[in-house]
Amino acid sequence: RMPNQPISGNDLARFAGPQTFMRLPEAQGPAGLDVVIMGIPMDIGTSWRSGTRFGPKQIRQESAMIRPYNLQTGAAPFDSLQVADMGDVAINTFSLAESLRIIESAYDGLHDYPVVPATLGGDHSLTLPILRSIAKKHGPVALVHVDAHADVNDEMFGERETHGTVFRRAYEEGLLVPDLVYQIGLRGTGYTAEDFSEAAGWGFNMITAPEIWHKSLTPLGQEIRQAIGDHPCYLTYDIDSLDPAYAPGTGTPEIGGLTTPQAMELIRALRGLNIVGFDMVEVSPMYDTSGNTALTAANLMFEILSILPGVAYR
Amino acid sequence: RMPNQPISGNDLARFAGPQTFMRLPEAQGPAGLDVVIMGIPMDIGTSWRSGTRFGPKQIRQESAMIRPYNLQTGAAPFDSLQVADMGDVAINTFSLAESLRIIESAYDGLHDYPVVPATLGGDHSLTLPILRSIAKKHGPVALVHVDAHADVNDEMFGERETHGTVFRRAYEEGLLVPDLVYQIGLRGTGYTAEDFSEAAGWGFNMITAPEIWHKSLTPLGQEIRQAIGDHPCYLTYDIDSLDPAYAPGTGTPEIGGLTTPQAMELIRALRGLNIVGFDMVEVSPMYDTSGNTALTAANLMFEILSILPGVAYR
Amino acid sequence: RMPNQPISGNDLARFAGPQTFMRLPEAQGPAGLDVVIMGIPMDIGTSWRSGTRFGPKQIRQESAMIRPYNLQTGAAPFDSLQVADMGDVAINTFSLAESLRIIESAYDGLHDYPVVPATLGGDHSLTLPILRSIAKKHGPVALVHVDAHADVNDEMFGERETHGTVFRRAYEEGLLVPDLVYQIGLRGTGYTAEDFSEAAGWGFNMITAPEIWHKSLTPLGQEIRQAIGDHPCYLTYDIDSLDPAYAPGTGTPEIGGLTTPQAMELIRALRGLNIVGFDMVEVSPMYDTSGNTALTAANLMFEILSILPGVAYR
Amino acid sequence: RMPNQPISGNDLARFAGPQTFMRLPEAQGPAGLDVVIMGIPMDIGTSWRSGTRFGPKQIRQESAMIRPYNLQTGAAPFDSLQVADMGDVAINTFSLAESLRIIESAYDGLHDYPVVPATLGGDHSLTLPILRSIAKKHGPVALVHVDAHADVNDEMFGERETHGTVFRRAYEEGLLVPDLVYQIGLRGTGYTAEDFSEAAGWGFNMITAPEIWHKSLTPLGQEIRQAIGDHPCYLTYDIDSLDPAYAPGTGTPEIGGLTTPQAMELIRALRGLNIVGFDMVEVSPMYDTSGNTALTAANLMFEILSILPGVAYR
Amino acid sequence: RMPNQPISGNDLARFAGPQTFMRLPEAQGPAGLDVVIMGIPMDIGTSWRSGTRFGPKQIRQESAMIRPYNLQTGAAPFDSLQVADMGDVAINTFSLAESLRIIESAYDGLHDYPVVPATLGGDHSLTLPILRSIAKKHGPVALVHVDAHADVNDEMFGERETHGTVFRRAYEEGLLVPDLVYQIGLRGTGYTAEDFSEAAGWGFNMITAPEIWHKSLTPLGQEIRQAIGDHPCYLTYDIDSLDPAYAPGTGTPEIGGLTTPQAMELIRALRGLNIVGFDMVEVSPMYDTSGNTALTAANLMFEILSILPGVAYR
Amino acid sequence: RMPNQPISGNDLARFAGPQTFMRLPEAQGPAGLDVVIMGIPMDIGTSWRSGTRFGPKQIRQESAMIRPYNLQTGAAPFDSLQVADMGDVAINTFSLAESLRIIESAYDGLHDYPVVPATLGGDHSLTLPILRSIAKKHGPVALVHVDAHADVNDEMFGERETHGTVFRRAYEEGLLVPDLVYQIGLRGTGYTAEDFSEAAGWGFNMITAPEIWHKSLTPLGQEIRQAIGDHPCYLTYDIDSLDPAYAPGTGTPEIGGLTTPQAMELIRALRGLNIVGFDMVEVSPMYDTSGNTALTAANLMFEILSILPGVAYR
Ligand SMILES: [Mn+2]
Ligand SMILES: [Mn+2]
Ligand SMILES: [Mn+2]
Ligand SMILES: [Mn+2]
Ligand SMILES: [Mn+2]
Ligand SMILES: [Mn+2]
Ligand SMILES: [Mn+2]
Ligand SMILES: [Mn+2]
Ligand SMILES: [Mn+2]
Ligand SMILES: [Mn+2]
Ligand SMILES: [Mn+2]
Ligand SMILES: [Mn+2]
Repeated sequence: RMPNQPISGNDLARFAGPQTFMRLPEAQGPAGLDVVIMGIPMDIGTSWRSGTRFGPKQIRQESAMIRPYNLQTGAAPFDSLQVADMGDVAINTFSLAESLRIIESAYDGLHDYPVVPATLGGDHSLTLPILRSIAKKHGPVALVHVDAHADVNDEMFGERETHGTVFRRAYEEGLLVPDLVYQIGLRGTGYTAEDFSEAAGWGFNMITAPEIWHKSLTPLGQEIRQAIGDHPCYLTYDIDSLDPAYAPGTGTPEIGGLTTPQAMELIRALRGLNIVGFDMVEVSPMYDTSGNTALTAANLMFEILSILPGVAYR
Repeated sequence: RMPNQPISGNDLARFAGPQTFMRLPEAQGPAGLDVVIMGIPMDIGTSWRSGTRFGPKQIRQESAMIRPYNLQTGAAPFDSLQVADMGDVAINTFSLAESLRIIESAYDGLHDYPVVPATLGGDHSLTLPILRSIAKKHGPVALVHVDAHADVNDEMFGERETHGTVFRRAYEEGLLVPDLVYQIGLRGTGYTAEDFSEAAGWGFNMITAPEIWHKSLTPLGQEIRQAIGDHPCYLTYDIDSLDPAYAPGTGTPEIGGLTTPQAMELIRALRGLNIVGFDMVEVSPMYDTSGNTALTAANLMFEILSILPGVAYR
Repeated sequence: RMPNQPISGNDLARFAGPQTFMRLPEAQGPAGLDVVIMGIPMDIGTSWRSGTRFGPKQIRQESAMIRPYNLQTGAAPFDSLQVADMGDVAINTFSLAESLRIIESAYDGLHDYPVVPATLGGDHSLTLPILRSIAKKHGPVALVHVDAHADVNDEMFGERETHGTVFRRAYEEGLLVPDLVYQIGLRGTGYTAEDFSEAAGWGFNMITAPEIWHKSLTPLGQEIRQAIGDHPCYLTYDIDSLDPAYAPGTGTPEIGGLTTPQAMELIRALRGLNIVGFDMVEVSPMYDTSGNTALTAANLMFEILSILPGVAYR
Repeated sequence: RMPNQPISGNDLARFAGPQTFMRLPEAQGPAGLDVVIMGIPMDIGTSWRSGTRFGPKQIRQESAMIRPYNLQTGAAPFDSLQVADMGDVAINTFSLAESLRIIESAYDGLHDYPVVPATLGGDHSLTLPILRSIAKKHGPVALVHVDAHADVNDEMFGERETHGTVFRRAYEEGLLVPDLVYQIGLRGTGYTAEDFSEAAGWGFNMITAPEIWHKSLTPLGQEIRQAIGDHPCYLTYDIDSLDPAYAPGTGTPEIGGLTTPQAMELIRALRGLNIVGFDMVEVSPMYDTSGNTALTAANLMFEILSILPGVAYR
Repeated sequence: RMPNQPISGNDLARFAGPQTFMRLPEAQGPAGLDVVIMGIPMDIGTSWRSGTRFGPKQIRQESAMIRPYNLQTGAAPFDSLQVADMGDVAINTFSLAESLRIIESAYDGLHDYPVVPATLGGDHSLTLPILRSIAKKHGPVALVHVDAHADVNDEMFGERETHGTVFRRAYEEGLLVPDLVYQIGLRGTGYTAEDFSEAAGWGFNMITAPEIWHKSLTPLGQEIRQAIGDHPCYLTYDIDSLDPAYAPGTGTPEIGGLTTPQAMELIRALRGLNIVGFDMVEVSPMYDTSGNTALTAANLMFEILSILPGVAYR
Repeated sequence: RMPNQPISGNDLARFAGPQTFMRLPEAQGPAGLDVVIMGIPMDIGTSWRSGTRFGPKQIRQESAMIRPYNLQTGAAPFDSLQVADMGDVAINTFSLAESLRIIESAYDGLHDYPVVPATLGGDHSLTLPILRSIAKKHGPVALVHVDAHADVNDEMFGERETHGTVFRRAYEEGLLVPDLVYQIGLRGTGYTAEDFSEAAGWGFNMITAPEIWHKSLTPLGQEIRQAIGDHPCYLTYDIDSLDPAYAPGTGTPEIGGLTTPQAMELIRALRGLNIVGFDMVEVSPMYDTSGNTALTAANLMFEILSILPGVAYR
């Protein structure tokens, strides 16, 4: 029996139908699913522009343009995986700390099942509770983290859990295998010369943007894939890794970033990784009224779906 | 047993959850429903700006802000009526003629049940097939038509079925009781002095905008309600009836229109009508990036729901 | 023989065809015309937001929605007057002073013919050279000036000719009959208590916005029409006279302004005036991406065309 | 000696100069000031659209268009009061609870001086700590609260301090004289029939929007002024009290609201109140790219400054 | 005698003058012209976002910034070719099928003259009737088709003539020399693995985007030019071939597309082709409020004009 | 003693605090400063879209996101240089000629001190008076001019001083060492084949965009740095040098421009130049509602600050 299929744009016009990811069926729970799409609409962890609370909505809306077959790579994710959209986590929009607890609990519930959570954000602070839940099931994981920022601050305004402290907390809590952490696209400015060097000392592999300007990212992706091998791996994709030309709709943009060809090369070269979860964060729709940043996020979600373990290629 | 309730904004943040009207449950069919919300995402019947194909999506999105109880009038529509969202009609976006056939057929299917169809447009051409279907069930109906335009052209580019010819066709086909047709808010410019006078000759009651500037519409609404009495009545609401200050996001705006207080007064004064169907058309989201035109449409939908036969008042 | 007609929206779709005002024919000169549409695309006379240089373009674009017959009043301006669009004055965008000289000279050329110039602005400084040219032909004129601002400053940054000094200069130069000057819609804030009182001392009739809030402007218009009688009259319409809700796309908006019903009432009540020229200024398109401010300006231009001497009513 | 004056738009172009409120001087502390302008840039207390964190910035930017003299009323606030801009409160953008503590403490510091705090928001949750601080100094105060919403919820997502619970908390804590609370412009939808009635039971005077549609608010303002008399009074102005046509740039808009003439009438009629503090909240700039909502907020701030005790009238 | 010249930006400010392409003269018919600019304002053939009906208007508006001499290549198209703007085809905006018939007939009329039609779209469905008309005159043509999409679907919603089926129809009808068809920039997602392979089987040469990422397109352009040689060639340019970063204002954007340097390299390398017609389609202005997508389209039109047979180089 | 530091985003939220460049302290004069930030808010020298008058405001606003340490290069400009923001030059917005005189005089005042002026524009015409002032102090300077346009026209509308004639005037007046002038990124279209060649004849080194497409600009920057050596050098950065994908918010965009990686490579490779002044011009905020063009300008300002003589590297 064929798994769930997105509604075809030739059966129902793209501007019609349910606003689930790629117009896949909704699901009430993870039972029977290989991949669950989950939205976490929040922006109270952001430090500059807000608006990512509307990210999941607009990524889903723009995802209606994506067809089920990856023409460029041959991947047919919906032929082999059962995917459905479980809707949104019921965060508490007035409390970041409480929201992080709610998210962790929600993902713990998912992890009773052999399902890969695919998360639509929301600001990057949501990745911390997801990693906590992931680590309960899989132990410390490898991490591919594509971002303009390392998100390894210790505190912001005295708070230890914000969108800028995620991966220091994850490191401290032992959620990651530090040598298998790859942070790609780092750039921007900092408060000290040590902003990145401390994390490098933990073992994190940091690839700054200038190192990869003008280059195909296929070799880098292949290198990472080989280094990580079969280790359970989480992939967290901050849309601000892309240059603001390619993704203007985000809260803390940094110039000199990745292009979309680079983003796709990187993801495609990671095929073969044992991905146990992934997210797409920091889309802030009001800063791109064309909708194209969300469309980009939706396409990158689809590219990651296309490299999940078990996906058939034609 | 309590009927369907919208998801509360205190249970799930408004920017979360399903993108149905007011986050009501979806339904696969009309069985058991008193009111069915139906989207018709189309814009190929428009003559100036397009974009109404995204109207249903954005009205649903903005409707998440509406709470279930009408504080100003006491109406509690979801206490007494079973309402659900059936999604969108699968129109053919490449053929207006074919789309009108599809819509009529879809509404014929609804009319096997004792349900009030509440339609989110979409351009105004969709009202013609709905009226055809309504008339099969109810015979010629009374009509409350709030619009800047009478939509009584004979042809546009040789086409007899467009967003500007709807009510001439409906008249010719005997779908309406001409003396019980009320067109409210008419204004703008025309091609001849007879643009309105012919329809007036059929018996249509035409209330132009200048007649109601600066006035409460409560008396007008009461007068119409009394004239129509218990006759089955269809209510068609073109958002361009509102002044562009109040509803900038529409395709053929005309200055000097209704205010939202007037729109609400009118609807509230119509309470008691035997409404057998209604629609909200011509919201074109890209012309109002704030979302407020769609929010207005959603609120007026709620106001109409609040006056349906059988609604409890507290 | 029928005069020039706008291209009908039923012959050629509104988004097609030439971008002249109402898609009227172009003219190379004023010979044979009763009314000439003239654009003056400039913004170097503005003191806050710029962008009015694109005003004529967008007013013309949005004017494509207007049909030739004024349904609300019965006026048929194109049945009785020969109207054409002469395009734009070739101002010098780097020099305000030089531009004012160019404008005056261009209008002097028009005034060799018995033509009413109808000007699309552009910032309000353009009215000064037009009045200079008008006064050469007609002597001091009556003035109906609809605006949030009196534009009677003496100097701005030491400059005596800007969008804020127009009517003091015109007064000083004897271009106006002071007792027949009506400034309507004045409001906003000022530098001294005397901002308005000096001009009142010259004889100017100043009607501030609070005096006309919540009121029909038909009585005021009728009163002005009677006071001015047959005296040659110039009508200058600053779009910022409207409330920013009704005309957001302008450079120096002031809250608490006119509604579009009031604007139309005022113009319609002025029917009978001996209008020898008029303008529509201060539309700044980038501050209203919906296009509706320009649409409003186009409609008000049409309303003024509808009351010109000699217009037939049906 | 003349108090601080705004930089004149004739001395320095409005788009130049410091981005303080009306380009008044900055101040490091309240010593010597009659009125202190204070920004509270926050949006983590909002329940629907975010973005009010940029409210203070844009209100200050747009305030550059306001001149120092109130032409319509004769008020000359800067002739009699020493006003300066103290910048922004250093809230903790990751914690609403912590931010409320910071705000209260900051205002306690102000209240060592005989100064009227004039606050630019920010979401409405900031009014609660201000009232706490105000009450320490003045005891329970009268309240004029202009808003679409009563903000008297008990909890939202289990939180007791959000932008929707402010005035219940203030009531419970005895910060208000309930009989001297006036909530004006209430409308929208609710969760129960009791949404407003409980607060009415406490003594709150609730004036819903439909009660004041089409009416001058001068009588209402006068009535309130008389009822409150000399009692210390706090004025809190939620920009969403205005209709979305007049103030689209806000987070929880409700149709059928006040017009700006009504807003100005109300404030002007309140002249004579013993105002001990006031705020202007809920401006969310990204939802109005014209800047006009912030301009409106800036003008209403100026109108309130114009009625403060001690202001000279010319 | 010098052919038609665009109005110089130093003679008449760019924001002034007629809204023809590059402010060239209008023409009533093709007699005496080498190249005719023709607009086809339509969007009823689009499957996702609409709005291309305003494409010709905005491309013409933005084209006012282009000067007549191609500084980068030395081309002086207006020294050697007589070019004028014939305005827009009078399509029927309510019927796609009828519009395609009107377009074909309009181009048949052009083809009585030795003129190269240069078309401003409008959605891509307009290319089918143009090719039908072209083939009547020139027989099957070579095709350079730059696009994110192959547009070789068989049907969409049962319709055989839409913006997604153009080149299958053209192939079936023998309008093309299949081996001389080059489709460049293909990418995005599909419904089956065979989406592209069937057309490849016909002989179409399909160059997908990943094949040309990070590369100069000069070699590809030279290769195509040599392969096509002197065969009559039609060039169809879908603006969505560009990456959405470079052309956000379009209806079906696909990430990972061409850059504008690549687009210019490709066109310049095609110099020498026997181009018998070309078009620029799918610009949807509302999705790029900066106007830059239309500016890009205008510049690419100019680049193609610069390589037409007979153009002088300095 | 540590020099002035930007307010940290961890001490005061980025959306709070003064709107100075990077939230540095304000200064009343240049005494004691190494670098002075100066705004020149003007747009009356522009030839197409206006709006650069708001450039300094928005660059300052977006600069709040920049942290003080250049993570990618190790530069710590605020450890070694005393930098402050002196606000805006009080130009006369009604007279370009007068404004240029005011600017020259303002900069003459600066040059009594050993300070590097860092200017936020404003349109490019402001660079002419700055160069006049610079040359009085330093004699003819080397020039690094990054721009889509050479700005070497002789006249525009008969005016000799506009944003398009700056560097011809500077050449004629002997303000530059022609052999040490580097114009980088030139492209677009022109009026004759000689548009660039005349300036090349003066000795100007012109690097057109096609010469550097797809390339790192590090080698070019190094070559320029070596050629200029220690000669006093002015750096003028027109944001339209960037491709419109990267900087949509500008007045005369030209496709096929620089990427932000190229812009940063170029600046970083220029380290070692004896920079005596620099500017960042032509940001027009309304054409990029995301704010990202201004953010880009702010970042490039920071990159230039990072290469000033005397900056410490960690
Ligand atoms: Mn991140
Ligand atoms: Mn990031
Ligand atoms: Mn209608
Ligand atoms: Mn209508
Ligand atoms: Mn004016
Ligand atoms: Mn004005
Ligand atoms: Mn509130
Ligand atoms: Mn409120
Ligand atoms: Mn195509
Ligand atoms: Mn395409
Ligand atoms: Mn320049
Ligand atoms: Mn330039």
